[in-house]
Amino acid sequence: MEPWDKLEEECGVFGIVSHPEAARIAYLGIYALQHRGQESAGIATSDRHKLHMEKGMGYVADVFDENRLGRLPGDSALGHVRYSTAGESAAWNAQPILIDCWRGPIALAHNGNLTNAPQLRRELERDGAIFHSTSDSEVILHLMSRSRRRTLPEAFVEALRMVQGAYSLALLTPEYLLAARDPHGFRPLCLGRVNGSYAIASETCAFDLIDAEYVRDVEPGEVVRIEEKSLESEMPLPKEKPAFCVFEHIYFSRPDSIVFGRTVNSSRREMGRYLAVEHPVDADVVVPVPDSGVSASIGFSRESGIPLEFGLIRNHYVGRTFIEPRQSIRNFGVKVKLNPVREILRGKRVILLDDSIVRGTTSRKIVQIVRAAGAREIHMRITSPPVIAPCYYGIDIPTRHELIASMKSVEEICGFIGADSLGYLSLESVFRAVDDRKQYCSACFTDRYPIEVAPEEKQKSLFEREED
Amino acid sequence: MEPWDKLEEECGVFGIVSHPEAARIAYLGIYALQHRGQESAGIATSDRHKLHMEKGMGYVADVFDENRLGRLPGDSALGHVRYSTAGESAAWNAQPILIDCWRGPIALAHNGNLTNAPQLRRELERDGAIFHSTSDSEVILHLMSRSRRRTLPEAFVEALRMVQGAYSLALLTPEYLLAARDPHGFRPLCLGRVNGSYAIASETCAFDLIDAEYVRDVEPGEVVRIEEKSLESEMPLPKEKPAFCVFEHIYFSRPDSIVFGRTVNSSRREMGRYLAVEHPVDADVVVPVPDSGVSASIGFSRESGIPLEFGLIRNHYVGRTFIEPRQSIRNFGVKVKLNPVREILRGKRVILLDDSIVRGTTSRKIVQIVRAAGAREIHMRITSPPVIAPCYYGIDIPTRHELIASMKSVEEICGFIGADSLGYLSLESVFRAVDDRKQYCSACFTDRYPIEVAPEEKQKSLFEREED
Amino acid sequence: MEPWDKLEEECGVFGIVSHPEAARIAYLGIYALQHRGQESAGIATSDRHKLHMEKGMGYVADVFDENRLGRLPGDSALGHVRYSTAGESAAWNAQPILIDCWRGPIALAHNGNLTNAPQLRRELERDGAIFHSTSDSEVILHLMSRSRRRTLPEAFVEALRMVQGAYSLALLTPEYLLAARDPHGFRPLCLGRVNGSYAIASETCAFDLIDAEYVRDVEPGEVVRIEEKSLESEMPLPKEKPAFCVFEHIYFSRPDSIVFGRTVNSSRREMGRYLAVEHPVDADVVVPVPDSGVSASIGFSRESGIPLEFGLIRNHYVGRTFIEPRQSIRNFGVKVKLNPVREILRGKRVILLDDSIVRGTTSRKIVQIVRAAGAREIHMRITSPPVIAPCYYGIDIPTRHELIASMKSVEEICGFIGADSLGYLSLESVFRAVDDRKQYCSACFTDRYPIEVAPEEKQKSLFEREED
Amino acid sequence: MEPWDKLEEECGVFGIVSHPEAARIAYLGIYALQHRGQESAGIATSDRHKLHMEKGMGYVADVFDENRLGRLPGDSALGHVRYSTAGESAAWNAQPILIDCWRGPIALAHNGNLTNAPQLRRELERDGAIFHSTSDSEVILHLMSRSRRRTLPEAFVEALRMVQGAYSLALLTPEYLLAARDPHGFRPLCLGRVNGSYAIASETCAFDLIDAEYVRDVEPGEVVRIEEKSLESEMPLPKEKPAFCVFEHIYFSRPDSIVFGRTVNSSRREMGRYLAVEHPVDADVVVPVPDSGVSASIGFSRESGIPLEFGLIRNHYVGRTFIEPRQSIRNFGVKVKLNPVREILRGKRVILLDDSIVRGTTSRKIVQIVRAAGAREIHMRITSPPVIAPCYYGIDIPTRHELIASMKSVEEICGFIGADSLGYLSLESVFRAVDDRKQYCSACFTDRYPIEVAPEEKQKSLFEREED
Repeated sequence: MEPWDKLEEECGVFGIVSHPEAARIAYLGIYALQHRGQESAGIATSDRHKLHMEKGMGYVADVFDENRLGRLPGDSALGHVRYSTAGESAAWNAQPILIDCWRGPIALAHNGNLTNAPQLRRELERDGAIFHSTSDSEVILHLMSRSRRRTLPEAFVEALRMVQGAYSLALLTPEYLLAARDPHGFRPLCLGRVNGSYAIASETCAFDLIDAEYVRDVEPGEVVRIEEKSLESEMPLPKEKPAFCVFEHIYFSRPDSIVFGRTVNSSRREMGRYLAVEHPVDADVVVPVPDSGVSASIGFSRESGIPLEFGLIRNHYVGRTFIEPRQSIRNFGVKVKLNPVREILRGKRVILLDDSIVRGTTSRKIVQIVRAAGAREIHMRITSPPVIAPCYYGIDIPTRHELIASMKSVEEICGFIGADSLGYLSLESVFRAVDDRKQYCSACFTDRYPIEVAPEEKQKSLFEREED
Repeated sequence: MEPWDKLEEECGVFGIVSHPEAARIAYLGIYALQHRGQESAGIATSDRHKLHMEKGMGYVADVFDENRLGRLPGDSALGHVRYSTAGESAAWNAQPILIDCWRGPIALAHNGNLTNAPQLRRELERDGAIFHSTSDSEVILHLMSRSRRRTLPEAFVEALRMVQGAYSLALLTPEYLLAARDPHGFRPLCLGRVNGSYAIASETCAFDLIDAEYVRDVEPGEVVRIEEKSLESEMPLPKEKPAFCVFEHIYFSRPDSIVFGRTVNSSRREMGRYLAVEHPVDADVVVPVPDSGVSASIGFSRESGIPLEFGLIRNHYVGRTFIEPRQSIRNFGVKVKLNPVREILRGKRVILLDDSIVRGTTSRKIVQIVRAAGAREIHMRITSPPVIAPCYYGIDIPTRHELIASMKSVEEICGFIGADSLGYLSLESVFRAVDDRKQYCSACFTDRYPIEVAPEEKQKSLFEREED
Repeated sequence: MEPWDKLEEECGVFGIVSHPEAARIAYLGIYALQHRGQESAGIATSDRHKLHMEKGMGYVADVFDENRLGRLPGDSALGHVRYSTAGESAAWNAQPILIDCWRGPIALAHNGNLTNAPQLRRELERDGAIFHSTSDSEVILHLMSRSRRRTLPEAFVEALRMVQGAYSLALLTPEYLLAARDPHGFRPLCLGRVNGSYAIASETCAFDLIDAEYVRDVEPGEVVRIEEKSLESEMPLPKEKPAFCVFEHIYFSRPDSIVFGRTVNSSRREMGRYLAVEHPVDADVVVPVPDSGVSASIGFSRESGIPLEFGLIRNHYVGRTFIEPRQSIRNFGVKVKLNPVREILRGKRVILLDDSIVRGTTSRKIVQIVRAAGAREIHMRITSPPVIAPCYYGIDIPTRHELIASMKSVEEICGFIGADSLGYLSLESVFRAVDDRKQYCSACFTDRYPIEVAPEEKQKSLFEREED
Repeated sequence: MEPWDKLEEECGVFGIVSHPEAARIAYLGIYALQHRGQESAGIATSDRHKLHMEKGMGYVADVFDENRLGRLPGDSALGHVRYSTAGESAAWNAQPILIDCWRGPIALAHNGNLTNAPQLRRELERDGAIFHSTSDSEVILHLMSRSRRRTLPEAFVEALRMVQGAYSLALLTPEYLLAARDPHGFRPLCLGRVNGSYAIASETCAFDLIDAEYVRDVEPGEVVRIEEKSLESEMPLPKEKPAFCVFEHIYFSRPDSIVFGRTVNSSRREMGRYLAVEHPVDADVVVPVPDSGVSASIGFSRESGIPLEFGLIRNHYVGRTFIEPRQSIRNFGVKVKLNPVREILRGKRVILLDDSIVRGTTSRKIVQIVRAAGAREIHMRITSPPVIAPCYYGIDIPTRHELIASMKSVEEICGFIGADSLGYLSLESVFRAVDDRKQYCSACFTDRYPIEVAPEEKQKSLFEREED
């Protein structure tokens, strides 16, 4: 089955310190962050003397059972979920990564991508380092271990000074948890409290599930140390211009999360509203592509006055494995997830609302099944600008030439997907929708990168190892 | 974790005859019907000589893999999914039921409930029959086996003449498939075609997935025989007043299905619309309880002019097993499925839209988390009348005294769930919403049953056997 | 992988009444009887009100875990293991069989085979009975249910009067356990006691594991009723000439068991001794084919004065699934289980000691690998007479024409398996070895059956249903 | 259940180069070596460009299925099984270890233990190395990666020059396989050939299964490089006095293997013979404790003239998990594996033959069940000297104070286990039995170590990390 044509987040991170049910709370935390990664799940805990770890391939609910949680004693825990794409999954890339070095045991969980990891890895390898994963995150542990700084937190900061790129990461030692966010703040990382214990999470929806209160974001360039019930903060890294990933608001994060200080649902509704202004069309119904298009469709419908209808229904039981028919069923990969409601679509002029177009293959199929359901006209509206450039900051994005918008004009894309019209939201409107007083990264739309990436440094090619 | 307070459908049925990939198509068919039953899944096939069967506890995607499908040769197949409730699941009740008798092997799949099954079972037992399941469906096979009629289809009809109640059922023999719907037509059963092969399914969404065309419903009282590429129909049962289950439109069926000849989504939107007329309230937002309230919320919002907002977000990864924290988190059972969006709810007068209230326990928790998210007022609106009576026609419903509406007034219920107001949709409006030219069963709202059920004949108590 | 060429026992039975850990004890009981059946395992328990059951395909240790045992409350339990052959395994034949009838719930576990089951089944089917399994055991439950006798034990006896053939069986009701052995006593069934509670088992090794004391055998034709701590016995069946299965001593039972009142190990040692007398040969070493040939090899070596050596070593980790190489390795199926010790075999005149030859295919391979290991001469000695006739009393035996000894002379068999000489133990010596004051069935060696079996009544063909 | 009181081998290694079914052959190889490690199993393969790996916890047959083998393309493979003890198992210690370094990818499989690993690890850690496992084997990879030698084989030799202790190890790169054995040759490693392809294995029984021919041992101090169909050998390490592990012959290896150039079965038979000479006793039967005592019992019986009987029967289905009764059954842990044959033991003067006594706890239970079975006298005879000292060369041995023979005299041990007499085989006789022209390590009997181990360097304590 051809993969669903979406950009994919690379990870979710959750940590809790000094809580009597640390492993269980971490389990719930990564459960709430499951949408950020479905390939692997792991939890490390500290019992104040040693670290313990359990991780495995699959969904949080499948990796962990009572037995496995029972092997995670201690009152601090660090959890991680990792993304899943077709060819790149591998048990050895599951996180947290647990290592021993002269500073003692350390568990690390990372969301993001280090742009200079290939160079650093090459240098470390030249210096004799051996790598057990193809993950860029392992570089940080090598740098820390080689640092001459006296304390582990100092070594951590020294390592962070050497790496470039995107990182929201956390590190568990027997005594404390360190969390850091890169100076641009590409990926989110939030601070919460529950019964006096501090927690960190990629998104606030993890706090909601455990009844924790959202306190604030870990700031770009900030390093926090959480030990027992206390938190210390430092800003040891050079200040940079913020570059929050705008795609978190467009697609990745859950709509009920507060990300970069703003509720995702509001951003999406606004995107829908601006889209109606920018690309008006005379139509009968606004139909969101579930689930990402739903919040935006409310804004679009309200602004345009065109009624919202759920003309595409998602099958809630789609997951994991699936056995396909041998004889091809047309657009099967889309049909197994989405089913058109003929009564809504038949004879109608339909506005289809989606968050983005990557390769265009899935959009093309959706247009086909909507048309087969009897739609008279199909106007595709996208709540983001054309994606024309790869992301080097933690998103699993196809190579440039696979991005339809980097190769074709909007008109050509419209032709390819078979719609009657196609409208992308302008970057200006996206910025307004997410609160333009904040500063976002929009490299995937503009090809202008906040951190330069040498053209020859396409890490995937270097890091690649053949996996299962 | 306390179970979600919903009425639960008891089953889904799917059959296909004379198709080169029969088992695979049946797999897809019951996959699309998964919402009708999550406890067990099974498929029987015929290779024209023998019947083969595989069934197991769990989701379709978990019960079947390539190996297991490979053990299902043949070009006809019959699939079944069964519901899941806390204490009643048992491997021996999984369907299809496969038996041998002097007429040869027969596989049976049933959606519904036979109201006189306890009496029939008692009589059959008195006559020496032994039962391997606690399912009422087994009664039909005994009746067929004991019938003196010459042919199996005749024996089938004779058996159907003896049973009362709700049944949409199908029977696979080595040569053909028989399908029948009770004279009241309580539960749905549809006929479809794909490449010249006939298929049957509980809902049309199963046809959509396999690219089959919806032909028509199996009519109340109709028995069809599908052999090779041909279909024969008979109406051998005494005509009765139709009594379609209105809850299929209110809650059970998928919104994209055509059920009883009408798209479910339309019915729900209309219910929302009538509800806005019947129980208007001055409020800021309409918030559906996902997913069942979503279609109705569009109608409500449109009619009332009050904006629709997705103030409750559903976690799409909830499923199967789940490990709970030991220390209680308030309303955890609801939180793990639904998360409020504070930004939408805070300070607002909220209309919460749901399809029904059974015990009231889940509604109460939802009201609590919405209020905790800052809602100023909460007005609960329900797209059905109060549920006051048990169902004996295929729905797993609590006993009468557990039904909050059979014990309390609307006002008291409103107090119990903690809402500021509560409005139920009138039965008249429900009927209008589902097309009142058709005739529906509304026993659970009216306590008036289309088929009399002797008070002492509460089948659950008789059929009960201790299960896992 | 071609199956190992052995006759296979069909089942093992274990029961315990009035014991605080009934399910656990039954688990241990069938664990000790695992050699009698590896296909499926099941346990039913009574909590004095209801029966509970768990069963599944596979080894006892794989079917049961703490969770599953936890779903088996009560102080009485009935366990069963069933044999495994290539094409006949099926979930629906797993035992115990649990049914409901007008007498209440009954669980049945059976070791043996009813020779008139096909006729009875046909009659029952003509009378309207439906069968859920292809097992002959289900017939007994139908007969009991149809009996007009007042009490369940009376109905049980009535049913037993109607069936012919081999049965050591037990029946659990909410109140008591009934156990019976057919009048010929084909299959073993023992009575034991542990802390005042009665237990039954196919072999005494099950008692040893649970620290129960072996009391006596259930006698041929005896029916016992165990309720609480008391046992009642009856002899309601017509007396018949005993016909104990001599193969229990030759191969099926564990050497540490007392079967038909005699330790199996002693019988085997004697068989080896008589074999040395009957078929002496000038040789260098006696090498048993493990494990069945081991006990006999001691007798043979002692009698002949030829030293015993373990020239074939068994791999203890062989089990369940096994992945074979694609390119054939010669005699792979044997090699994966047995490895020759070259140092013992090289240049030697070897006496190979095995318990029986069925098709001859495995013996042929063993001779080949022993010869490849350097043996100069190979003299095959078999502790039983040639198997020339099928068994209808509970052994899974090939059809007559597959039995090499029914088609070929001893000389021809010797040629087929490639040995330098071949000697079978005479039936007289077998009888002496197992204590000839007792009376054994030797139909598979003599083609003379204690109970006549109509030639057309080959049950396998009638009962056959296509299975997984 | 208390663990069986045995010394445990730490690992088995198997490699094959240039074979069309490399992964499958490696699977068979480690399957035959399963007795050397039951905790984890893994296979790495090379497709000449990249390395692939699959490993997991559990038995070979459980870790690998067709799917998993299918993810191991290539024509060279390296397999490994690892031992299982109660508290030390951990997924991260499973082998092969697969790493990336500037020399490219390397997979390593190790049998043995490096005595200076703690020091080397400390130094490497001081120099910034990070460790992903608690295994000493990882040290070698760090040393290789840090080596300045030009080629990988040179770096391998350099690393081997720095490590001390026991190692039979193999290393797979995309191009070739390197295998090495430490200069003392503690652990076995054999070379074989199959259809022109070279293979390596810990024991020859792995060759037997795949129809490979045993060529010779990898010599102590030898490093071989196998590439395509050719083999190059070097002796780059300083020559040392051989110190073959004598316990391989006493207990670890399979009796059908040729280890250190000698068939294990012969050694054991000789041990039994010498034991009869050294510790004669007037008795009725010689009873081996299966399975290790079986080979020796033949020698003992033959030398003494006392008849051999299998008075203790092993349950062949014991494995993995096992559910214990809640109420204690006396000596349950032993009973589940061994059952006494009363008829053999009752009233007899029994010589019990076992290979070693470690803590004495299991021996004590065996004596108890033999006595409970009616033995009049029990004379325990052990085919090795008292184990008084830990092993630092690859055996999982208790700490010194847990070794009963390091704390108690033979007389006291005899009292503890409850035997009537106890005789250990002298070291001289052990040496004679295994061919005393070879030179063996006997540190565990003599406390004299071929390689000095600093008292403070008890690696377990340093390497320990808390595991599942």
